[in-house]
Amino acid sequence: MAISDYRNLKIYNSLTRQKEAFKPINDGYVGMYVCGPTVYSNVHLGNVRTFLSFDMVYRYFKHLDYKVRYVRNITDAGHLENDADEGEDRIAKKARLEQIEPMEVVQMYTVDFHDILSKFNFLPPSIEPTATGHIIEQIEIIKTILEKGLAYEINGSVYFDVLKFNETNQYGILSGRKVEDLIHNTRSLDGQSDKKNPQDFALWKKAEPQHIMRWPSPWSDGFPGWHLECTAMSTKYLGEHFDIHGGGMDLKFPHHECEIAQSEASCGQTPVNFWMHANMLTLNGQKMAKSTGNYILPNEMFSGENEILSKAFTPSVVRFFMLQAHYRSILDFSSAALEASEKGFFKLMDAINLIEKLPVSDTSSGFDVTAWKDNCYKAMNDDFNSPILIAELFNAVKFINQIKDGNAEISKEDLDFLSSTFNAFTFDILGLKNLSSASNEDGDKLSDVVEVLIKLRADARTNKDFALSDQIRDQLAAIGIQLKDGKDGTSFSSN
Amino acid sequence: MAISDYRNLKIYNSLTRQKEAFKPINDGYVGMYVCGPTVYSNVHLGNVRTFLSFDMVYRYFKHLDYKVRYVRNITDAGHLENDADEGEDRIAKKARLEQIEPMEVVQMYTVDFHDILSKFNFLPPSIEPTATGHIIEQIEIIKTILEKGLAYEINGSVYFDVLKFNETNQYGILSGRKVEDLIHNTRSLDGQSDKKNPQDFALWKKAEPQHIMRWPSPWSDGFPGWHLECTAMSTKYLGEHFDIHGGGMDLKFPHHECEIAQSEASCGQTPVNFWMHANMLTLNGQKMAKSTGNYILPNEMFSGENEILSKAFTPSVVRFFMLQAHYRSILDFSSAALEASEKGFFKLMDAINLIEKLPVSDTSSGFDVTAWKDNCYKAMNDDFNSPILIAELFNAVKFINQIKDGNAEISKEDLDFLSSTFNAFTFDILGLKNLSSASNEDGDKLSDVVEVLIKLRADARTNKDFALSDQIRDQLAAIGIQLKDGKDGTSFSSN
Repeated sequence: MAISDYRNLKIYNSLTRQKEAFKPINDGYVGMYVCGPTVYSNVHLGNVRTFLSFDMVYRYFKHLDYKVRYVRNITDAGHLENDADEGEDRIAKKARLEQIEPMEVVQMYTVDFHDILSKFNFLPPSIEPTATGHIIEQIEIIKTILEKGLAYEINGSVYFDVLKFNETNQYGILSGRKVEDLIHNTRSLDGQSDKKNPQDFALWKKAEPQHIMRWPSPWSDGFPGWHLECTAMSTKYLGEHFDIHGGGMDLKFPHHECEIAQSEASCGQTPVNFWMHANMLTLNGQKMAKSTGNYILPNEMFSGENEILSKAFTPSVVRFFMLQAHYRSILDFSSAALEASEKGFFKLMDAINLIEKLPVSDTSSGFDVTAWKDNCYKAMNDDFNSPILIAELFNAVKFINQIKDGNAEISKEDLDFLSSTFNAFTFDILGLKNLSSASNEDGDKLSDVVEVLIKLRADARTNKDFALSDQIRDQLAAIGIQLKDGKDGTSFSSN
Repeated sequence: MAISDYRNLKIYNSLTRQKEAFKPINDGYVGMYVCGPTVYSNVHLGNVRTFLSFDMVYRYFKHLDYKVRYVRNITDAGHLENDADEGEDRIAKKARLEQIEPMEVVQMYTVDFHDILSKFNFLPPSIEPTATGHIIEQIEIIKTILEKGLAYEINGSVYFDVLKFNETNQYGILSGRKVEDLIHNTRSLDGQSDKKNPQDFALWKKAEPQHIMRWPSPWSDGFPGWHLECTAMSTKYLGEHFDIHGGGMDLKFPHHECEIAQSEASCGQTPVNFWMHANMLTLNGQKMAKSTGNYILPNEMFSGENEILSKAFTPSVVRFFMLQAHYRSILDFSSAALEASEKGFFKLMDAINLIEKLPVSDTSSGFDVTAWKDNCYKAMNDDFNSPILIAELFNAVKFINQIKDGNAEISKEDLDFLSSTFNAFTFDILGLKNLSSASNEDGDKLSDVVEVLIKLRADARTNKDFALSDQIRDQLAAIGIQLKDGKDGTSFSSN
């Protein structure tokens, strides 16, 4: 079977609240937009989980041989403190507090974001546009919405007229909220707002004199509303109608709801076929969030320097931990859960390192490799069910260990098939990294040096110098390198 | 002495063609703009040298305790094939050839650029703005220049009127060219150009129908001229008058000349106090350049996979090689020169690794540590003379080795002084990395594992098992790790 024969994917669509067969708008091509970070602080582990979910989605589409254009933006302007239209711009506020230029804040945290995602072995998106890089496009959309009569200008600001829009369209279609309920749920206007109705949202805000981030527009020197940037960038790079829009669960309302309204108002059609929302990472039962102080930073994971943690964990272990939960489930973080994942991760890597050394037989027994491969695809095709996929991988691990122990057999052909499938799912799709066969320079050298020690230890055992052989094993264990003796020699794993 | 007491820096100013005492516009603050890459291809080693020169400059200013705003842009639109106003946009052309969206080209090579610079241990700049992110600012500058009567619009494009500008200002002030000579040196108009005079340059170009990268403007749907982006971004983030503008030697004319003209025309003042130009890396006596095919890619250096190379070299060795030449000198690349640098680099690192283990005496003899430190600053203060600085560091290496061999003495106080100065110049200012004490995770682990082997080898020698001790040394050498035995134990270096 060709890879593309496995393209029978179902995706849970937040818009229709059900799993639907995925059919791309253009055969063989996938357009996907994901809301990226607001770069005013260090990315925390909860953010990482959201972006990881879509990294896995992107990897799986690529694996299925789709040509994917994956656009993930950087929000570097317009995101106000309260996710609503009041308060200060988050980046401008940080800049004010630190007495630096807002774009220095943007650079500092964009570099951090890229650095952290790279440690977690994320693939870069195809395009990574910025909000400030698309002010003109945003202004053009506002002009169109004004022409359509679905927005109004007042005192230099422009607001989207939700009630007017709702007369002909359905505001709330994604979140299931009703406009009339929204009125009561929106806090009363503070007298400073120019909005006609509280549920209206800003397309353009006139800048106060002290506001540094500002651009000229037909209405005022000001800045675009937060929701507008994603409409401008997704339309520019994916068209008025594209396949998938993703983001964190917390963006469903108002952000994504407003995006739909903006697109329908300006282009006259619904923008997105599939809305996907990734669930959150909790800590102590609460959402990880910068604003509440309830979070862990990735670098604390890697160093172990956080009182919540019993030890340090590598990026691949953290990645594995997150992928053991389905992207639409809440995942609660704990050090104990991480430790359990770490054991599983090593077990998986040990099995992968064993594959090459397994003895082959004329036929296979005890495991149907073809059915297993089908099950792996079945898991991923069921709304990217990575925990089920991982369970399938462990079925293969069991089989590999049985072969090693002489309790099962595998043919050369099946072994090659098992090996390529295992590698594809583990490394290409789940994006895990195997340090002992890492392609990075230091990893390679580390591996080489450990092999020197493994050989010395083997010599020591041949010479019955068990004191020396134990010494080598213990000293390696002390620096986090575990030796595993098997029938066909010694392998190692590193944490 | 406080660090800031060493602030008596002289910089060669391309504008005045002499070294001048550096005095910042705002006491204690430095504003520096450097022309960044046009992201339409992989960064080659010649590009790396240019940016490295300014990384060293940035690091030295930071070391001198200046608050530096270092702006280095990304050119993602407007740079035409011929560096002039004809031909296709470089990024759009690449996108057309590869049948992808231009911003996918931008993303691919921006990621490569950041990845390579990070391997070479570059500090990220304070702000990294993009040309497409500043279209509005460019349009505003064009409006101003038009109002001043120093540009003209024709058929939807806008050109800078060089002859008119030259009546009141001096076009050619940086490059030393004369406007009348330029007429004869510019190739004759091809009939397609709308320019009044051949030396005029584009501020805005009307886009042909097939041109994808386009924005609305008062004159046409089009795109900005290449020179304009740097004026827009430097002015926005550093003001109309700032301290330092840097770039490769090849940008002096026409790019930087045009920047000066644009700034003087729009703001009425010269934009920059110090113009700095980094010289090029040659290969076979010719400038390394993508366009001629005469280049080496950084990843070829790290893997050794280029027929010019005798072996692989680490980023720090390449960095050291480049810093052994002054930034204003041409540097010719050869594998033999790299090998010589590698030897020097290891010698330097060995000495640094020795410092902690040196025996201290009551007094020092044979070397004046204070005078040496002054000489290090003197070298850097003389227009960032890194080769002289490196020669000074080797004077200290000689002293360190004399102490080790018992031929010189050092007091505790002087040793601390030597150590902190040595580390500051080697790691903070030159930006070299010492693998055996690397802070990166794999480097640390590698170091730990090698230490296990060093200990085993020491035990073997104690037991007179010289076969084993030689075996360990040889096997490490085979994977590129050299052990160095000294009076105070064994250290290692890794290439």
